[in-house]
Amino acid sequence: MRVVVPFATEHPKTRLDGVLSAEERVAFSRAMLADVLETVRETGRDPEVLATAPLDATAVSDGSAGADSFGSPEAPVRVDDRALTPAVNAVLEASEEPVAVVMADLALATPAALREFLAAENEVVLAPGRGGGTNALLACHPDFRVDYHGTSYLDHRERARAIGASVGIVDSFRLATDIDEPIDLPEVLLHGERRATRWLRAAGFSLAVTDGRVGVER
Amino acid sequence: MRVVVPFATEHPKTRLDGVLSAEERVAFSRAMLADVLETVRETGRDPEVLATAPLDATAVSDGSAGADSFGSPEAPVRVDDRALTPAVNAVLEASEEPVAVVMADLALATPAALREFLAAENEVVLAPGRGGGTNALLACHPDFRVDYHGTSYLDHRERARAIGASVGIVDSFRLATDIDEPIDLPEVLLHGERRATRWLRAAGFSLAVTDGRVGVER
Repeated sequence: MRVVVPFATEHPKTRLDGVLSAEERVAFSRAMLADVLETVRETGRDPEVLATAPLDATAVSDGSAGADSFGSPEAPVRVDDRALTPAVNAVLEASEEPVAVVMADLALATPAALREFLAAENEVVLAPGRGGGTNALLACHPDFRVDYHGTSYLDHRERARAIGASVGIVDSFRLATDIDEPIDLPEVLLHGERRATRWLRAAGFSLAVTDGRVGVER
Repeated sequence: MRVVVPFATEHPKTRLDGVLSAEERVAFSRAMLADVLETVRETGRDPEVLATAPLDATAVSDGSAGADSFGSPEAPVRVDDRALTPAVNAVLEASEEPVAVVMADLALATPAALREFLAAENEVVLAPGRGGGTNALLACHPDFRVDYHGTSYLDHRERARAIGASVGIVDSFRLATDIDEPIDLPEVLLHGERRATRWLRAAGFSLAVTDGRVGVER
């Protein structure tokens, strides 16, 4: 099985532009990528990055003494500057073995959650994300192709049915939580334990409860 | 084991007031309550409602021909007009057996997800909700008490530690998704299959994708 982690090298996480500068969004997205790669590795698999442009080798650090490096751990990087859907489909078409596609912004992913996902015994396995996305996908059927536009979770289920593939759905809050918008940041502080969480804390973010709702303050 | 489902009888779901009228919020919250009660029952347990006021017996219907009744299925109702925290703690104090507290707005809950939660073998079991809430809680330790204010998930973990109780965390997207705000409604249409989903559809709601984000339109 191959485990592919797509990553938008340039202009990542644009929906966080209200709370993070362009440089910070790069650093934070790299920290999440490194977390996901490490988590995949802890399940016993070797991840590959599918990036829109080469990742520069500069380790991103929070600048504080004794801080962790928040850069990406080593993993083979394949560059494909196309949009996510054709880039992933090119991998699916070329692969002789099952392919798992795990999003790079699953800052809450744990080895246990990913292991359960990778162990599901169906021809297509989906971990839905909040808002109808597909946060992780395992394609064991040679004819399965992706379409990440819109409510991809529904589309992927429908495509699997159309090719007669059995479908498994993995119910995981940790895999369902992709970090896209400011409203997602509390989850990283509440449930994360790796680089992305440390990066947010080092950048001065903390939980704040207002009117009974949790948010972040900096 | 007792399974208690707290329910705010009057003025439920005020954060949905931008998209649903007061009467509709009552009907929708009753549909979710009925779904949760039914789901609990399908795990082989008999749920009890812990309501802030008596539930009137009027079945709420969508008015269309052949429609389901969206009203609450029968379950014993205990009325306690206090806030959620003291009302639940009164149950915990009085109970000789383990108590599960399952929120009434878990419209995506399935018997499988609830069964896994109820089967966890710890003295305190928590299913976190988005935003640091505690969507389901199982107290098997006599000294455990709740505090639903603020980031209750963190507080409940801390309280369990303070009394020396073992803690289990259940990782479930379906249990993590409580339906509080308009942004939550797409999840009901995407993943729900029971009364609350049928109620939303009958009320004219459907999924709408704008700028790559999913929402609802009516």
